[in-house]
Amino acid sequence: MTTALAALDEQAERLDADDVLAPLRDRFLLPDDVVYLDGNSLGPLPAAVPPALTDAVSRQWGTDLIRSWNTNGWWDAPLRVGDTIGRLLGAAPGQTVAGDSTSVQLYTALGAAAALRPHRTLLVTDPGHFPTDRYLAQAVADRHGLEVRRIPPADLPPFLAAEGERVVVISYSPVDFRTGELYDMRALTEAAHRAGALALWDLCHAAGALPLHLDALGVDLAVGCGYKFLNGGPGAPAYLYVARRHHEALRTPLPGWTGHADPFGLNRDYTPAPGIARARIGTPPILSLLALEAALTAFDGVDLAQVRAKSLSLTDFFLRCAAELLTPLGFAPVTPADPARRGSHVALRHPHAHGLTQALADRGVIVDMRAPDLLRFGVNALYTTHRNLVTAARHLHAVVRTAAYDPEPPPSGPVT
Amino acid sequence: MTTALAALDEQAERLDADDVLAPLRDRFLLPDDVVYLDGNSLGPLPAAVPPALTDAVSRQWGTDLIRSWNTNGWWDAPLRVGDTIGRLLGAAPGQTVAGDSTSVQLYTALGAAAALRPHRTLLVTDPGHFPTDRYLAQAVADRHGLEVRRIPPADLPPFLAAEGERVVVISYSPVDFRTGELYDMRALTEAAHRAGALALWDLCHAAGALPLHLDALGVDLAVGCGYKFLNGGPGAPAYLYVARRHHEALRTPLPGWTGHADPFGLNRDYTPAPGIARARIGTPPILSLLALEAALTAFDGVDLAQVRAKSLSLTDFFLRCAAELLTPLGFAPVTPADPARRGSHVALRHPHAHGLTQALADRGVIVDMRAPDLLRFGVNALYTTHRNLVTAARHLHAVVRTAAYDPEPPPSGPVT
Repeated sequence: MTTALAALDEQAERLDADDVLAPLRDRFLLPDDVVYLDGNSLGPLPAAVPPALTDAVSRQWGTDLIRSWNTNGWWDAPLRVGDTIGRLLGAAPGQTVAGDSTSVQLYTALGAAAALRPHRTLLVTDPGHFPTDRYLAQAVADRHGLEVRRIPPADLPPFLAAEGERVVVISYSPVDFRTGELYDMRALTEAAHRAGALALWDLCHAAGALPLHLDALGVDLAVGCGYKFLNGGPGAPAYLYVARRHHEALRTPLPGWTGHADPFGLNRDYTPAPGIARARIGTPPILSLLALEAALTAFDGVDLAQVRAKSLSLTDFFLRCAAELLTPLGFAPVTPADPARRGSHVALRHPHAHGLTQALADRGVIVDMRAPDLLRFGVNALYTTHRNLVTAARHLHAVVRTAAYDPEPPPSGPVT
Repeated sequence: MTTALAALDEQAERLDADDVLAPLRDRFLLPDDVVYLDGNSLGPLPAAVPPALTDAVSRQWGTDLIRSWNTNGWWDAPLRVGDTIGRLLGAAPGQTVAGDSTSVQLYTALGAAAALRPHRTLLVTDPGHFPTDRYLAQAVADRHGLEVRRIPPADLPPFLAAEGERVVVISYSPVDFRTGELYDMRALTEAAHRAGALALWDLCHAAGALPLHLDALGVDLAVGCGYKFLNGGPGAPAYLYVARRHHEALRTPLPGWTGHADPFGLNRDYTPAPGIARARIGTPPILSLLALEAALTAFDGVDLAQVRAKSLSLTDFFLRCAAELLTPLGFAPVTPADPARRGSHVALRHPHAHGLTQALADRGVIVDMRAPDLLRFGVNALYTTHRNLVTAARHLHAVVRTAAYDPEPPPSGPVT
């Protein structure tokens, strides 16, 4: 064990020394005494955010007041920030809008899909999809008289070949939020299109972590949050992408006033704005939106191919740490070893995941768990180091070896 | 004119000297060189907000990171802030939730109403309602196979007496956003209830400006924004009130994960949380929400009856200024002179409202206009002075007398 640990330490040191993205860590204000491996749940604070928010509050709101809607670009912020996010999604400008929560954007995307494919009857989603995706798929299906089919990603191509002509939309995530498995967006999108169905992707666990190619893949709709790999802050506004070819026919379920063609015209009836602007709903939470915009500058000049390469180096290295230090103690990695099938976190199964997560937190290692038995270790190439990972593995090893944790199951209620 | 102005100056001085709420102005960071009469569109910056946001960003997000969902109360913030707003609405705790935009909350409230009255066919709203209220009423009606009837508030009681048994819900604002007219919430709510219909109130232009009594009046549903008289910042989260008696039957159209009974249980199906928590949708924009929470401390210890009395003193005084200085120049007040029928802004009609608004802004007097010809002068008893109002009237008088404004109609696009 000591030999193994020394070897891992040495590897971490070498990998970090060779890391061309290492300077990006200075774009974040990370506490010195914390190893933060939960950026797949809440990204840490980018250094650009505090001064941007101070300006937004004291100058823009405090001094310029209502005029800021024009003079400080508040009105255009959802589209401007949307385009900035679009660059990380492989989306040309004018197809992405920022605002609301992922849940609201999902409802919008699913409702819009139903309206775009009015004579089809099935809404197909992942049985392992994040809860809000599943709940909203059911709600939209009920509203439109559709049937929800829950098909694992691996079974989706044959399902679509057999029953695809009845499918409105497939609603999936490229990265499983529990296991970290990465699915083949291209193959699944193409399978949907061969059946004449739409493809909707939830990018919460992908955007900012790996290159995406929404335009090139012909994706129809996408949503995602601003607070994981985009580091936009707690509950940062979400985003919606709609491919340009659908804009003219796009009808959203919530025709709010900011999506009107003439929002200040006080018209009697709703006329959708041209382009993606018609997907705007109500007045956006500007402070949270400007925090997200500042956070996104952490990606300025960053090559997402390098981000992906480093992310894989990190998760690969952590899987090696786990193999050496943790699987002998009863941990089972559930994240694929094949890099082509791996997102940007590693999940280890252990029956005492909750207590272990708490014990790690007491040692300054922040990870999270997903019920009932998965510990998740998220990496972000912008700030995670290989040393962070060997530190986490070492602490986890020590906690288990000394039984220094609570083996009880988690209480009900919110856990991180 | 000089005599009239001197008399108004003297009255303003006396009224301000007698103002028991005058010290509250120190709870706001208002620029010295501005007369701000647009708090009915965007409230100014409360002094409590900058330090609260600095703490939220640097300590809670930056240092405590993901743990803040528990340790700093992020998870409960929508319910906690909701209860704080509820105190201004006459709502006992546990019936108000903060989050999302007014448009999303309206969609939720209207959809919930349709589910609570499934065998009725009419959705009744104000033909002069704010656009988003009208658009979303139509959208919800279309979705549920209902018919929208647009009935002016004055005609609502006879309409309900005649056709009320078919009405799902009446959706109105107590204050007309253009004219500032205040309607009788009690009478209209009772008329709805006599017909077995639900009453939904949009409180955007009322909450924080006058005492409200949702529980006492038996109101069923209410929504409102956080950024007008609540001063929560640009696009501050909105809120939804649902009377407790409806909670058990409450079904919302967007069953997002945070409204689940066991949000971290990763369940397959949606089970609504008990109480108003089931109206939560997605992850809330915490920075904007905590700014709103800090802003609401400006109401600490404040008696809303005194707020209402001062608001009426302010609008009454401005109507007198207008009568002396402005109606002779072609301005027509459209706000009722009867205090029982007046909200917290005064609107004057003038064909060059747009150019005059701009000219006033150039002189440091911030008001707004609503197409095509209304200038709005919003007052907020927490910080507006009578002197502010005579200053505004004096500048407007001078601008018109010297024709120092652009008489062209407004360009299309956003205007404030």
